[in-house]
Amino acid sequence: MILGRVIGEIHGSIKHPFYEGKKLLVIEKTSPTGVATGDYLIAADSVGAGADERVLVLDEGNGARQVFDSKDGPVRAVVVGIIDDIVT
Amino acid sequence: MILGRVIGEIHGSIKHPFYEGKKLLVIEKTSPTGVATGDYLIAADSVGAGADERVLVLDEGNGARQVFDSKDGPVRAVVVGIIDDIVT
Amino acid sequence: MILGRVIGEIHGSIKHPFYEGKKLLVIEKTSPTGVATGDYLIAADSVGAGADERVLVLDEGNGARQVFDSKDGPVRAVVVGIIDDIVT
Amino acid sequence: MILGRVIGEIHGSIKHPFYEGKKLLVIEKTSPTGVATGDYLIAADSVGAGADERVLVLDEGNGARQVFDSKDGPVRAVVVGIIDDIVT
Amino acid sequence: MILGRVIGEIHGSIKHPFYEGKKLLVIEKTSPTGVATGDYLIAADSVGAGADERVLVLDEGNGARQVFDSKDGPVRAVVVGIIDDIVT
Repeated sequence: MILGRVIGEIHGSIKHPFYEGKKLLVIEKTSPTGVATGDYLIAADSVGAGADERVLVLDEGNGARQVFDSKDGPVRAVVVGIIDDIVT
Repeated sequence: MILGRVIGEIHGSIKHPFYEGKKLLVIEKTSPTGVATGDYLIAADSVGAGADERVLVLDEGNGARQVFDSKDGPVRAVVVGIIDDIVT
Repeated sequence: MILGRVIGEIHGSIKHPFYEGKKLLVIEKTSPTGVATGDYLIAADSVGAGADERVLVLDEGNGARQVFDSKDGPVRAVVVGIIDDIVT
Repeated sequence: MILGRVIGEIHGSIKHPFYEGKKLLVIEKTSPTGVATGDYLIAADSVGAGADERVLVLDEGNGARQVFDSKDGPVRAVVVGIIDDIVT
Repeated sequence: MILGRVIGEIHGSIKHPFYEGKKLLVIEKTSPTGVATGDYLIAADSVGAGADERVLVLDEGNGARQVFDSKDGPVRAVVVGIIDDIVT
């Protein structure tokens, strides 16, 4: 899993019924201290994450489908948590 | 999932019956703002994406097979949507 | 699998019941000789790994779920061992 | 999926019965225009690809096993097609 | 799959019963001509590979588990062969 920050939301025509009513977020990947790495990924939201929030992202299809109780959703990445703090 | 742009289509002898009638697109990976990253991948089309369109690509085999209702298709990446806008 | 070092623990609101009572560790990836590579990942703990310990991390969803006897846990990476020594 | 070029074949003792009678090819990864990227992978052949041919490679285990009608083959990458042309 | 060279063996407390009696090898990734790339991975041994031997590594969990006849082993990478020669 990785850490990131919500920087946008995708609007478009994604026909698969899995995506009806789901938000697709643009997630900027960050270091553990919150510095942007320059990379990003697109993840479905499962926790109501909003702009600029730091999030935990699961980037693995079988687990992502389980979060949505879906056997056949075409999804690979999902926001599974909102980060409050990282204790070092 | 990642964002990209359609830059070509593959012609060749791909014998597996899964690929009969399917388009294999060359997708240039892009940043969220649409800048090419220099990397690419090959993805099967599921939405009728055309040249230069910005697309959402799922790069995960089990989900990609589900998009085509296939249990055994040798496919890993599929174009699942066309991007209209990214709201930041 | 990869080698890493525990450098932190995540606190946040991760709603999925899979994560109740589980520690989510920040793992700095290292070379075989223990030098940080500059990359990291987030992994669930299965062995009681503590700060600064060198660990073996499995970064694969299906195997990670098995470690926790879970069919549907949204997890991809898990700390599976503590490293004592690497014999070369 | 990715594009590559056949640059060699592996000879060695690979004991698993899945590999009996199969060719293991060294595939140089290329850009869509055929320029070597400097990276490579090892893939099982399913189409009779020969030296220097441009090929389409599926790098995903479950799909790769299906190409060989194998439930348990220890394989991740397979050459699934020979490229004639890329229309841009 | 990738090519590598055995450069070490891990000693540590890995509690999962899957690892009882198995060797965990440190594999330096190499180019097809045997030059170290600077990266590595940890793989379970299935062929009796020894120090400095050039090996073929499968880095995919479901296939790796099959090599060990395990449904639930927490393993992602396995040494599946010893390389004698690469014919180019």
